[in-house]
Amino acid sequence: MAPKYKLTYFNIRGRGETLRLLFHAAGVEFEDNRIKQEDWPALKDKMPQKQLPVLEIDGKAQHCQSMAIARYLAREFKMYGKSSLEAFYIDEIVETVGDLYQEGTKAMFEKDTAKKAELMKRLGEEVIPRSLGFLDTLVKKYGKSGFAVGSQISLADIVIFTIIEAVMAKEASQKFPKLSENLKKTEENPKIKKWLKERPKTDL
Amino acid sequence: MAPKYKLTYFNIRGRGETLRLLFHAAGVEFEDNRIKQEDWPALKDKMPQKQLPVLEIDGKAQHCQSMAIARYLAREFKMYGKSSLEAFYIDEIVETVGDLYQEGTKAMFEKDTAKKAELMKRLGEEVIPRSLGFLDTLVKKYGKSGFAVGSQISLADIVIFTIIEAVMAKEASQKFPKLSENLKKTEENPKIKKWLKERPKTDL
Repeated sequence: MAPKYKLTYFNIRGRGETLRLLFHAAGVEFEDNRIKQEDWPALKDKMPQKQLPVLEIDGKAQHCQSMAIARYLAREFKMYGKSSLEAFYIDEIVETVGDLYQEGTKAMFEKDTAKKAELMKRLGEEVIPRSLGFLDTLVKKYGKSGFAVGSQISLADIVIFTIIEAVMAKEASQKFPKLSENLKKTEENPKIKKWLKERPKTDL
Repeated sequence: MAPKYKLTYFNIRGRGETLRLLFHAAGVEFEDNRIKQEDWPALKDKMPQKQLPVLEIDGKAQHCQSMAIARYLAREFKMYGKSSLEAFYIDEIVETVGDLYQEGTKAMFEKDTAKKAELMKRLGEEVIPRSLGFLDTLVKKYGKSGFAVGSQISLADIVIFTIIEAVMAKEASQKFPKLSENLKKTEENPKIKKWLKERPKTDL
């Protein structure tokens, strides 16, 4: 019997959207459990690392760490490459995206106004163009027919799509031909297209 | 024929030691290419993301992103669990260690003296104990006979060992029985023991 998946996260895209996109792209059913901010304090202590997202499998084991969950789902859904080398290429992209996500959140959540302005400027002028350049090179090196790695959709396409949304870099990405082609390919995937249309509209 | 591996990194443990430990634990030969700080500016622009470590396979493809390299080597060396679920458990540990590494480097490399003092205090009093607690729970849940996950050495044992060294948390780890048992198990592995004795002594 197919496992019963329950994904618990806040009602934002954040660190949960990569996981939701994996489920939707693979056409695998899951409970998209979105908790309200006011219910979080009561739930927090029950979560393995007092953080979300958390994946529950068959109502029992609870697992945390979004990118560990992403890799597991990608492996189960055959979206982790066709060989150990392809999985390596996918991981290179995942980690490159992870670096950008880290810089992005550091800037966006900085509380000091002056420091935030400085970090946001650096993000837009240096960090994003540099990271998108790296991703463009990786997609050119590893992908075929618009896919990020190999010739089918994988975790790599999903994380690229997610990060571009997260750091609002759609416009910046248009300077990078291979990356733009890849983003278009992901958006045109019928299952993803359907999800993008249906999903709750949130700010983050 | 066995692939020819060349690992390029600085002459520090840093982000390279996990990879070196994987090679040594697996008993796989590799070129441990340690570059001098003064040679870095000339080399930097030739590296895929202007960063180290970089892994070269058979003198051709150069790959970056230390944790992508670590996962590839672990997979090739049969140190990534015996099933997709065990790989998931290993990744939960890898990502938990990654969070701690990030907090650790943020504190250690902060330039502002007052801010650094504050971050180091928080690291020692809150971040390290919390993370070690998470790791202790994960090892208890997933490991057998002292191993972090399953009943043989894996990437999980290696990253736990590396992070404890990196954030100087050996003493703090002694409060956590499962984690201490695991660290001891790793240190007693004959191949690792040999490497720890032979390796260049460096500050970081």
